[in-house]
Amino acid sequence: MLTDFVKGEKPEAEEIEARIDAARSKLARQQIQIKEKKLPVLVILDGWGAAGKGSVLGRVIKELDPRFFRTETLAQPTQDEVRRPFLYRYFVRIPEAGKISFFDSSWMDETTKSYLLDEYSEKEYANHIRSIKRFERQLSDNGYLLVKLFFDISEKEQKKRLEALREDSSTKWRVEKFDRWQNKHYKTCRKVYDDYLENTNQFSAPWYIIDSKSRKWAELQMLEIMTRAIDTALTNSTRSVPILQNTFPLKTMPKLSAIDPNVRISDDEYRTRLKELQAELSDLHNRIYHKRMPVIIAYEGWDAAGKGGNIKRVTAALDPRGYEVMPIASPEPHEKARHYLWRFWNRLPKDGHITIFDRTWYGRVMVERLEGFCSENDWQRAYNEINEFEQELQDWGAVLIKFWVHIDKDTQLERFNARAADPEKQWKITDEDWRNREKWDLYEEAVDEMIAKTSTEYAPWHILESDDKHFARIKALEIITSEIKKRL
Amino acid sequence: MLTDFVKGEKPEAEEIEARIDAARSKLARQQIQIKEKKLPVLVILDGWGAAGKGSVLGRVIKELDPRFFRTETLAQPTQDEVRRPFLYRYFVRIPEAGKISFFDSSWMDETTKSYLLDEYSEKEYANHIRSIKRFERQLSDNGYLLVKLFFDISEKEQKKRLEALREDSSTKWRVEKFDRWQNKHYKTCRKVYDDYLENTNQFSAPWYIIDSKSRKWAELQMLEIMTRAIDTALTNSTRSVPILQNTFPLKTMPKLSAIDPNVRISDDEYRTRLKELQAELSDLHNRIYHKRMPVIIAYEGWDAAGKGGNIKRVTAALDPRGYEVMPIASPEPHEKARHYLWRFWNRLPKDGHITIFDRTWYGRVMVERLEGFCSENDWQRAYNEINEFEQELQDWGAVLIKFWVHIDKDTQLERFNARAADPEKQWKITDEDWRNREKWDLYEEAVDEMIAKTSTEYAPWHILESDDKHFARIKALEIITSEIKKRL
Repeated sequence: MLTDFVKGEKPEAEEIEARIDAARSKLARQQIQIKEKKLPVLVILDGWGAAGKGSVLGRVIKELDPRFFRTETLAQPTQDEVRRPFLYRYFVRIPEAGKISFFDSSWMDETTKSYLLDEYSEKEYANHIRSIKRFERQLSDNGYLLVKLFFDISEKEQKKRLEALREDSSTKWRVEKFDRWQNKHYKTCRKVYDDYLENTNQFSAPWYIIDSKSRKWAELQMLEIMTRAIDTALTNSTRSVPILQNTFPLKTMPKLSAIDPNVRISDDEYRTRLKELQAELSDLHNRIYHKRMPVIIAYEGWDAAGKGGNIKRVTAALDPRGYEVMPIASPEPHEKARHYLWRFWNRLPKDGHITIFDRTWYGRVMVERLEGFCSENDWQRAYNEINEFEQELQDWGAVLIKFWVHIDKDTQLERFNARAADPEKQWKITDEDWRNREKWDLYEEAVDEMIAKTSTEYAPWHILESDDKHFARIKALEIITSEIKKRL
Repeated sequence: MLTDFVKGEKPEAEEIEARIDAARSKLARQQIQIKEKKLPVLVILDGWGAAGKGSVLGRVIKELDPRFFRTETLAQPTQDEVRRPFLYRYFVRIPEAGKISFFDSSWMDETTKSYLLDEYSEKEYANHIRSIKRFERQLSDNGYLLVKLFFDISEKEQKKRLEALREDSSTKWRVEKFDRWQNKHYKTCRKVYDDYLENTNQFSAPWYIIDSKSRKWAELQMLEIMTRAIDTALTNSTRSVPILQNTFPLKTMPKLSAIDPNVRISDDEYRTRLKELQAELSDLHNRIYHKRMPVIIAYEGWDAAGKGGNIKRVTAALDPRGYEVMPIASPEPHEKARHYLWRFWNRLPKDGHITIFDRTWYGRVMVERLEGFCSENDWQRAYNEINEFEQELQDWGAVLIKFWVHIDKDTQLERFNARAADPEKQWKITDEDWRNREKWDLYEEAVDEMIAKTSTEYAPWHILESDDKHFARIKALEIITSEIKKRL
């Protein structure tokens, strides 16, 4: 692909200037349309060291309205970032609708560099490529315009530039060790870049190679590629995309109707087991911390099923410095303006920590599906997107435990009535709860589909029978401790 | 990909029946919407021998309205088809808008089979994969819904089925030699299929693997995949797609304004050279035939530039059994209902033959662009689509010669007036010609862009200066003879 590329004829200096001016004004006008049409635009700049990405980017943004774009320089991951999944630092930086983000070096740079420096095995590298393709596809499928630029220079030109930079004491610092390594191993790098570009050259987000021999010429190419891509994206309205076939290993799960939520435990047994299990979990928490294992516990369930109390019995066993509970309500405007998984990526624990989600990303295939907050294509696509997301967590080494807290319809009614009658608990019951209750059957259908389609072998759903809350708490603690032990 | 695939849990027989019924009625309803929305749908069925593609297809189509679908069985290419480019027999069979075509075995089958049987080199195989990806992308980009199904069975199951077929004298004939070869080399085949599926698994046209252990279950999967894909496609309106970067080697070409179309030749020289060149071409025509070399000569140019007379001087030298002239007017309704290149694929010569196009597929980036017969995204995309098309011709071994017959604006006016004044030539001049003339500058801009973007090294444009028609004829014959000689 890269080697196939034939550099466009470089125009005369005068023509370049004129076309840069034209493209600049066009981009300035497009910024307004991007805002109006709420289009999120992500432009990634990759390429050879000393190809001039930074200076070209500096010129391109010069006349943009700073309220509507951001630039992100993504060199080495920070200490905090290396404790998260590989894609974390990119995902949390995706632009919101109506804005442009520029990434100076993207996931390509990190991935190919680690591979070239033998920090990844072939298998790890292949896994990263797979993750990247999925990530890029998810962005496109969710309405993002992704513009991918590779700044290309020859071996000789790179050498010349690196030498010039090093000779000047004021620029010497800009030459990194890897730049020199890259130039020394130019052919090897080129082969790896070629393959990477070919592998990730999805037609929905194709690569554009920028001939970077001259800065002005490179700037013009970048401007014209961007404005054209934005034009194309602006003419499109939301569209449906093919629903991909499941390729994840799924466990066979029962339907909710086959489960009796009324399982009891004696008070004595409850107290004894609770003490034992909390002690065990407390101990495991230390080991999790030392092993730097991330743990994510996700709670979903019927209203009034007892999620809150269940979570409390878990956190009671944990060191407050090592866990967080994330209550998930409707998304805030700045969250709604991004990929629906963004707010969950943003809330991932550091390795060695535990995050408990009180309601989760599964809202997409329950409330958002049933209330029409997203299109049918959106929620149908979401099963796969969520399985992909959870596989990223799995690849990262996380333990992911998903609970469906289950009660029967009568028990819910009893608890609603009890809450309504108790002045101290009235706040816990809202009109919305009553409305949701009316849709019980639709929810049950959605939950059955969710459990069937997202019970992957690495992250199956666990049903907590919770007519007896004590039973559900013990069962949750048993599952949590046993899942963690399996992985320690 | 194939090996990643996890077979969906097969439901109970009763549920399968019920869901088949539901999907069947849905598909019947969708047929009407497909017609109304003018959606072209192409479903390809690939997979293992004896996987049951044929019988499943037979059941799926049983209740469809036969006016709106076709099935095509694409086994071995016919004698006529092997004399065309590899993709020819698929391209000419694509459905028209509003109809469904089913291909029982697609380009996958032909390509992987030839590769497995060592009929292709690695390089040829890679070229075919590239052609296939481009072809599939062109279909999606041009509004086609492409549904790709792979019918999967295990080695053991295949063996069992093949043995059962062979034991029965009434079905013995259905077991082909390749089926047995495939079963004997199951693992090798699986590896090749896996790679193929992975390589061609574009997100805009993803693969679906059908677990084919039971016919009914396979039928249900096919029906549900189809109806879902059709649903998705029906909700989309026409959309713009990214304009891909040029990756073809381009020659630098002058703009029309830099060319003086007024070059003269004496009458004597004209007569002498014409005789010589026609004799030479006549001789070359025999050699073309014996070498089975396909030759395509494409004429474009200003109205009244002298295309017709020029073509006559070429055909005068040719054996009528070995050439055809294809005058290209506005597309017929059945042509308009398909990919715009379809009518040109349909008119390709057999190898050893010459086809002369009087106007060509370049109408897309001239008249269709300027008259708004296609969207801006359509014609901007077309440069690449056309370069891809011409590379298919090149890969096939064709000589492709493209002429722009050039005159200046005054010469055109003189010829228009002369035609208008001559009762025998009045039919040659229409109101449309006068209207086009008013748009001379816009056309010139479009022609300049076309020549710049489609003068690939393997098929550059040749400008014929045609103020003096004699000169243009001699130049055309010189180019034709010399290009053919280069390749013989």
